[in-house]
Amino acid sequence: MKQAHHTITVSTRGPGLYEFTDAAIDFVHDAEIQDGLLTCFIRHTSASLVIQENADPDVCKDLRDFFAYLATSGPRFRHTTEGPDDMPSHIRSALTQTSLGIPLHKGRLALGTWQGIYVFEHRDAPHRREVALHLAGE
Amino acid sequence: MKQAHHTITVSTRGPGLYEFTDAAIDFVHDAEIQDGLLTCFIRHTSASLVIQENADPDVCKDLRDFFAYLATSGPRFRHTTEGPDDMPSHIRSALTQTSLGIPLHKGRLALGTWQGIYVFEHRDAPHRREVALHLAGE
Amino acid sequence: MKQAHHTITVSTRGPGLYEFTDAAIDFVHDAEIQDGLLTCFIRHTSASLVIQENADPDVCKDLRDFFAYLATSGPRFRHTTEGPDDMPSHIRSALTQTSLGIPLHKGRLALGTWQGIYVFEHRDAPHRREVALHLAGE
Repeated sequence: MKQAHHTITVSTRGPGLYEFTDAAIDFVHDAEIQDGLLTCFIRHTSASLVIQENADPDVCKDLRDFFAYLATSGPRFRHTTEGPDDMPSHIRSALTQTSLGIPLHKGRLALGTWQGIYVFEHRDAPHRREVALHLAGE
Repeated sequence: MKQAHHTITVSTRGPGLYEFTDAAIDFVHDAEIQDGLLTCFIRHTSASLVIQENADPDVCKDLRDFFAYLATSGPRFRHTTEGPDDMPSHIRSALTQTSLGIPLHKGRLALGTWQGIYVFEHRDAPHRREVALHLAGE
Repeated sequence: MKQAHHTITVSTRGPGLYEFTDAAIDFVHDAEIQDGLLTCFIRHTSASLVIQENADPDVCKDLRDFFAYLATSGPRFRHTTEGPDDMPSHIRSALTQTSLGIPLHKGRLALGTWQGIYVFEHRDAPHRREVALHLAGE
């Protein structure tokens, strides 16, 4: 078995989805592993990961707006010291993913035709988000 | 280390949960691996995966109805070209899982007594949903 | 490749987040594996897993209260035989995680500075929750 590790940085400019599918594919190719499991792990709790449609950009906008609405539809928050957008960001992160596992078979990730891998930024200010990538296989 | 790959197809007939626990167990048995990690990955963004109780069928109906309500409780959608049920499907998919990792130990998956693995179909029309299975272990 | 399996039990006293980061780190150290993938899998459908901020305890309280609100904001439930808190628990479980994958590199989990791993208990009565841990690597 071989393993490869890499960390990519995704620069964000406010709430929304930032695709990094190509960076994940490049990492897999460079690792020279044909069959195995790719894990993507985001090292933050106010940004998260999702796999979504990368055909129509309106899907990403509708997702951003829905989660903005959802996280502020409930009770008032105690945790406000880091700004009014911080606690809704933790909620949106808990509602989506911190880690994703994607099988790799014969050199191709199992992603469907229209599936893209995204960082879902939840905070208003620009951030640099670290995603740890790990591949184990042969 | 050994690896096994397989893709199963789950036929759906409208929104709801479709169990495929037995197909996953069969795949594990056929792979002749005793200890490792099973990954289930759905190759779609308008259907998803969940592990839920498989004792009382009402749990699945309540889950279906709750997510139907939730995804349409917010702002109006831009992405409507694929039908009024498409964008709510992407949202329900983002709120649940695209991939699941389940440890395998001494030939048994770590599933609890009442845990079943389900495709959660979100679209109204019948679909054939592909779930990629990957097992790595010894 | 080496593998290690372990099951930890987390005792809960009502809805909220119960951190077990230290138990996961101890398991990794005892396994004497430096590079690989840690999988955490909860063997229940009315409790779940989340990775969240472990700096300000108010974040956990706000998460608990938000999910309590969210799961009861929709339609009435059919599944009430196990108590009024049971079906909302399944919903909160479906909205968060059953499994988490965390890369391990040079003896350190990829967790960010403020990331903690939590059991998210959703039921009112005290429970003992089993989390299966699996580590594969070298």
